[in-house]
Amino acid sequence: MATTSPYRTFIQDISASSTGEVLLRGWVYRLRVLGKTSFIILRDCSGVAQCVAATEAVQDYRLKVEDVVEVRGVARADRRSKVGFEIHILTLRMLNRAGQVLPFRSADNVEGIGLETLLHFRPLALRTESVGDVFRIQAALLSCFRDALNRRRFTEIVTSKIVSGGTEGGSNLFEIKYFERVAYLAQSPQFYKEQSVAGFERVYETGHVYRAEPHASSRHLTEYYSLDVEFGFIEGPEDVIQLERELLTDIFQSLNSRHGETLSKYRGEPLPSMLEAPCWEFSSCLEMLRSNYGRTDLVDDLDPEGERQLCELAKRESGFPALFVLGFPLSARPFYTAPRGAEGAASSFDLLFQGIEITTGGQRLHRREDLEAALLSRSIDPTTFESHLEMFELGMPPHGGFAIGLERLTCQVLNLPNVRQAVLYPRDRDRLTP
Amino acid sequence: MATTSPYRTFIQDISASSTGEVLLRGWVYRLRVLGKTSFIILRDCSGVAQCVAATEAVQDYRLKVEDVVEVRGVARADRRSKVGFEIHILTLRMLNRAGQVLPFRSADNVEGIGLETLLHFRPLALRTESVGDVFRIQAALLSCFRDALNRRRFTEIVTSKIVSGGTEGGSNLFEIKYFERVAYLAQSPQFYKEQSVAGFERVYETGHVYRAEPHASSRHLTEYYSLDVEFGFIEGPEDVIQLERELLTDIFQSLNSRHGETLSKYRGEPLPSMLEAPCWEFSSCLEMLRSNYGRTDLVDDLDPEGERQLCELAKRESGFPALFVLGFPLSARPFYTAPRGAEGAASSFDLLFQGIEITTGGQRLHRREDLEAALLSRSIDPTTFESHLEMFELGMPPHGGFAIGLERLTCQVLNLPNVRQAVLYPRDRDRLTP
Repeated sequence: MATTSPYRTFIQDISASSTGEVLLRGWVYRLRVLGKTSFIILRDCSGVAQCVAATEAVQDYRLKVEDVVEVRGVARADRRSKVGFEIHILTLRMLNRAGQVLPFRSADNVEGIGLETLLHFRPLALRTESVGDVFRIQAALLSCFRDALNRRRFTEIVTSKIVSGGTEGGSNLFEIKYFERVAYLAQSPQFYKEQSVAGFERVYETGHVYRAEPHASSRHLTEYYSLDVEFGFIEGPEDVIQLERELLTDIFQSLNSRHGETLSKYRGEPLPSMLEAPCWEFSSCLEMLRSNYGRTDLVDDLDPEGERQLCELAKRESGFPALFVLGFPLSARPFYTAPRGAEGAASSFDLLFQGIEITTGGQRLHRREDLEAALLSRSIDPTTFESHLEMFELGMPPHGGFAIGLERLTCQVLNLPNVRQAVLYPRDRDRLTP
Repeated sequence: MATTSPYRTFIQDISASSTGEVLLRGWVYRLRVLGKTSFIILRDCSGVAQCVAATEAVQDYRLKVEDVVEVRGVARADRRSKVGFEIHILTLRMLNRAGQVLPFRSADNVEGIGLETLLHFRPLALRTESVGDVFRIQAALLSCFRDALNRRRFTEIVTSKIVSGGTEGGSNLFEIKYFERVAYLAQSPQFYKEQSVAGFERVYETGHVYRAEPHASSRHLTEYYSLDVEFGFIEGPEDVIQLERELLTDIFQSLNSRHGETLSKYRGEPLPSMLEAPCWEFSSCLEMLRSNYGRTDLVDDLDPEGERQLCELAKRESGFPALFVLGFPLSARPFYTAPRGAEGAASSFDLLFQGIEITTGGQRLHRREDLEAALLSRSIDPTTFESHLEMFELGMPPHGGFAIGLERLTCQVLNLPNVRQAVLYPRDRDRLTP
């Protein structure tokens, strides 16, 4: 792989048998002065190398940890080194000094550092191993998600996030001043991904969605990244559930094999196969919550405690704490949801994973007349949605899909307690910077 | 690859030697009744197949083009067929009827159909070969872009699109009502990608950016998809230009080899290698425009005509119509731009490709004191940008990067005259739906 600076060497590309000069650029990660010898542990995006020089030769640079430097040197085999070599410094160049007072250092264990500090000083936090890992794993999740769908004939789509109205009736929308008009930030690409199914049959999108959530909990954000999937020619919601099982299994297997070492720092066991994740009816779930936990307060939805309890039950039964809950009450789901039987249940499911809902999905209505009837039964004037409804006359297959919140998925994969730990620059009720 | 509906067969997976029943689901693409025999050309996301039945057996379905159907049948080798087989229909099932009156059909040549109609009826347009191709190529561009950067040690990042202020001083911003405050839609991930360089060294992001452009031209959108790259430890803007050369060459080679047949429908020649794309100084460009085209009106920027003329000159000189223009006047570039020499030029470039600018990039200032001085020289109070400036004390490498507009790149690759042809749901001054 060509590097853009022809003389710059990535640390990972050096070995004990490297000959000739190398030109390294990176951050001072650690610094040790042992009398006449100074050790500069240098870090770049590819790894860490110990660089050695006579103290006399480098002391004028007044090096500090986090300083940005260039080292010209020679690799020498060294059996004491983990990587098998160290770099003897020929010349050193200061590229940019770090500040005198830093809130923490990139070599620190940041477990004891508050989330506010880690969010405020994002660049430095990213340079620590544990915060950096979160976003490297997140990037891998994204990449595996797209790969797994590309392999299954899905087409990636990009749809507008500026919309003229909500997909679910209009609450929790952020308002935009759009020239002389009012527009809104999209809560979901739902309508656009359904329409795209009528074009491409199988589509996905990775992009931001927006919810003007007035509460700032450990699991809510006003802006999150949604992994959206929608596909046509399904028989029922079970097809959608099965695709998600296979997809997550693919993603988890890739993560286990490519990032197993990183994962082992965050979780005791590798990520599970989801192929055997059970699917329980919502009504049975309520019954089980009643008989196992005395819950009599849940009616048309689950709550965070119920989600945890169901995952406990699933773990007891199937060995790992994940399950699909299918058949939520139709009245509690959006108008475009297909019914399940005649008893008021919906062909709609949640995936609960390690105690928290990470997906909502289901089969959608695909006939214009059914959508109109659903809107009328909710006392919504169908003409409000005319520009969407007319798309159902262009040849719309039976279809369904789901959406995974990337931040929540990252949290569950890495056992992070607060969703803000899985966002570079989180947005909530109170947070608009950095 | 497992399909989610166990019995459903993709057309592409059938061959002349297929035995046993197949279950196809798709759209009626064409329909021919020849006396006692009816031919239903079925299309799914993987291909097109001719299905045959006795007219008597299918006439009760009153099939129309674009209807959504299921065909159970048997593949039989047929030498007259391009794919070597046809499907003898055993049973047919209507999944969803298309409307009686459609604005066009998916088998039509849509060249004569107006852009407004194609935008209004997006799902049907996507089902046509030529509009579908645009977005399949766009998806491939995205995928190749990410792959090429992943191979070069870049980390994908996701940054917030809700910001408290602009990166360039505040014009052309869309305002959001953010609870009791005012926020804005991000014009660019510029600050966040620079900050992320101080964490990860090499980052990219693919995401929406927003410009409240008051003019609706064939090349402007209010919402577009930006392919953003930023990386550290550069020597100068030439390193950034070289990365873009290599990156586009990788992407174009992948497209040529994987989608050559599709590309050949849109352009006479395969996509070029960009490795030899020349880099001309801005001042020389003005001189050449003067001497070749008598242009004396350009001072601190190019205009669309100047971009076209420079590409013509590059084509004459280097064989293909693309060039980097480096060294725009510093005063015409954002405050964070690094200078180029002492004569008021910027380490900032545009890439002009087949007559249009598709990239702006350059080296950025990486020292806090330089950024403060740049702000002061523009009469901007540095405290306005304090939350960004303080990140430059955490160990910031010399860095630079660029952004490619996905829609414009798609247009140039496929020779499309209007950027709206490369957006599923375009947004401009006047357009907010569908």
